[in-house]
Amino acid sequence: MRPTTGWQADGTSGTLRRGPIERRDLRADDLAVRVDYCGVCYSDLHALDVHDGKAGHLLVPGHEFTGVVTATGPGVTGFAVGDPVAVGNIVDSCGQCAMCRAGQENFCYDFPTLTYAGTDRQDGSHTLGGYSREYIVRDRFTHHLPAGLDPAATAPLLCAGITVWEPLQALGVGPGSQVAVAGLGGLGHLAVKMAVALGATTTVISRSPDKADDARRLGAHGLLVSSDPEQMAAARDRFDVIIDTISAPHDLAPYLKLVAMDGTLSQLGYLGPVTVETRNLLMGRKKLSSAGSGGMPATAAMLDFCATHDITADIELLPSSQVNEALERLRRNDVRYRFVLDMADLD
Amino acid sequence: MRPTTGWQADGTSGTLRRGPIERRDLRADDLAVRVDYCGVCYSDLHALDVHDGKAGHLLVPGHEFTGVVTATGPGVTGFAVGDPVAVGNIVDSCGQCAMCRAGQENFCYDFPTLTYAGTDRQDGSHTLGGYSREYIVRDRFTHHLPAGLDPAATAPLLCAGITVWEPLQALGVGPGSQVAVAGLGGLGHLAVKMAVALGATTTVISRSPDKADDARRLGAHGLLVSSDPEQMAAARDRFDVIIDTISAPHDLAPYLKLVAMDGTLSQLGYLGPVTVETRNLLMGRKKLSSAGSGGMPATAAMLDFCATHDITADIELLPSSQVNEALERLRRNDVRYRFVLDMADLD
Repeated sequence: MRPTTGWQADGTSGTLRRGPIERRDLRADDLAVRVDYCGVCYSDLHALDVHDGKAGHLLVPGHEFTGVVTATGPGVTGFAVGDPVAVGNIVDSCGQCAMCRAGQENFCYDFPTLTYAGTDRQDGSHTLGGYSREYIVRDRFTHHLPAGLDPAATAPLLCAGITVWEPLQALGVGPGSQVAVAGLGGLGHLAVKMAVALGATTTVISRSPDKADDARRLGAHGLLVSSDPEQMAAARDRFDVIIDTISAPHDLAPYLKLVAMDGTLSQLGYLGPVTVETRNLLMGRKKLSSAGSGGMPATAAMLDFCATHDITADIELLPSSQVNEALERLRRNDVRYRFVLDMADLD
Repeated sequence: MRPTTGWQADGTSGTLRRGPIERRDLRADDLAVRVDYCGVCYSDLHALDVHDGKAGHLLVPGHEFTGVVTATGPGVTGFAVGDPVAVGNIVDSCGQCAMCRAGQENFCYDFPTLTYAGTDRQDGSHTLGGYSREYIVRDRFTHHLPAGLDPAATAPLLCAGITVWEPLQALGVGPGSQVAVAGLGGLGHLAVKMAVALGATTTVISRSPDKADDARRLGAHGLLVSSDPEQMAAARDRFDVIIDTISAPHDLAPYLKLVAMDGTLSQLGYLGPVTVETRNLLMGRKKLSSAGSGGMPATAAMLDFCATHDITADIELLPSSQVNEALERLRRNDVRYRFVLDMADLD
């Protein structure tokens, strides 16, 4: 086993403490990655909340990170020591099912192995995430970090980025598309940047008008204030695609009204069961969809696209020792737009 | 006013009685239509149930009928006396809004005027439907009946037919598509015929295996028995489009599991509010949609398509005097697949 250090919760409180963890010895197709930067995802907060009270059960969050290869298993051919790499929220899948064969490992019928709080498919061990200095990962679930992308600001692309990229691609967003992005957080600000770079006319939907400057700075063509009934009425049936990144439970009806005929509301903040009035779908043959995470080919394509268009997340970089502060501020939505932890202080 | 005869409920019982009704005098763009055949739609049953107990309020159902023009208003140029025609479930709309301008009068922002139980836009009168011997209708909400189509078996195309045609078109069904049709009633059997004629591989989904012969006779390539867990599991992620015509409230989850990645479940039997687990949409970026009725251009295109492919409804033709029997049997789903009333006995 390989000793390293990580930020961990032991189930007695939601606070993360620095402590030793062990990584597996390298399998034939494994890479050892020195984690340099790890994004702080809303899911991490959720995982900590769920974990709280499960004493004795170790949780190390973190599923969007970048770093450098420090060792390779004997079967690895696509990576070498020193390569800059990136890892997202899944690290293995069955590889056999229709979804895996289609390159949508995120939809693996046998459920993909999550980067943390998952179960390793070979030894049954509990996966521990990227809030740590080293991670051992299969080569085919690792991405080369394209040249020119800042490694810290790229980390959030591996979860937030691919989550918004997949629906933008699947729904055919491009020049001529009318796209709206509801919610301007970690996912939303990347959706705006990507939609703009794809050539879509892009509008931010926000409760308050004070997001106008931010929206413009991100490249959006307009801001629609959802608390203004006149603006909402005027935007009826306007958007071919709405990327709804609002993570709190909310009524989808006002957003469905903004969807154009035959358009789609893609709901990304996992809401559990939602109730929709079918009349709001019927009047305009509108569609409700959802998406989450992404497959390996799409993630690689997204990274290439971001390198070409110079897209990374707007981040606040903190030493990893401030992880608890980052999580608390994230809980209050006090972040523009993603915290990234610098893991150098774990050495 | 023009006196005619119709099957009417007066709000004291759900039973229809033959009685006199009055039609408006012809406006400049009106046609007088001798109603020959009127389909019996599930909506008629629903309207009668809702109407029951509203004493003094006249209801004449019927919103899918064919007949012959007997008189024309002075401004009518597209129709002449003697023309065979067809009328569906809307007879007017604002004509000004984005949806009307796009030829989707069924989604009119000011709500389209329903063929019955609607309110006439000019005189405010209550519209009375096609279970009658004469109907007065604006020319632009009237369709020419294509040559070669049986007028009785065509009547159901004007509601059931266009309702399934619109999603098949909007969702791009054609050669290579995998389509499933859930529920083999008035809508479902037409969806099968149309999907097959569009070139799709078409499967009927039914609770019982005894629909196999019917499915084959309608042209379907297979039957999927929804009560058989093995068959359902084997069909996971198979269908690009599912046309769900089941009108009773039902759990959408088992059907969403059958939708292929990026595919759509189009729900046509108006269900009111439905609850979906967003995970069932997320795993495969699936879409839930709904549709209903259709615009004038699409209805005309559907009639042309049906004439080309010799598609009409499978009907049971009854003299209109048996309307109450037809409604009772429809309530028990004892019909293959649509009752049509022959109005000649109203003379």
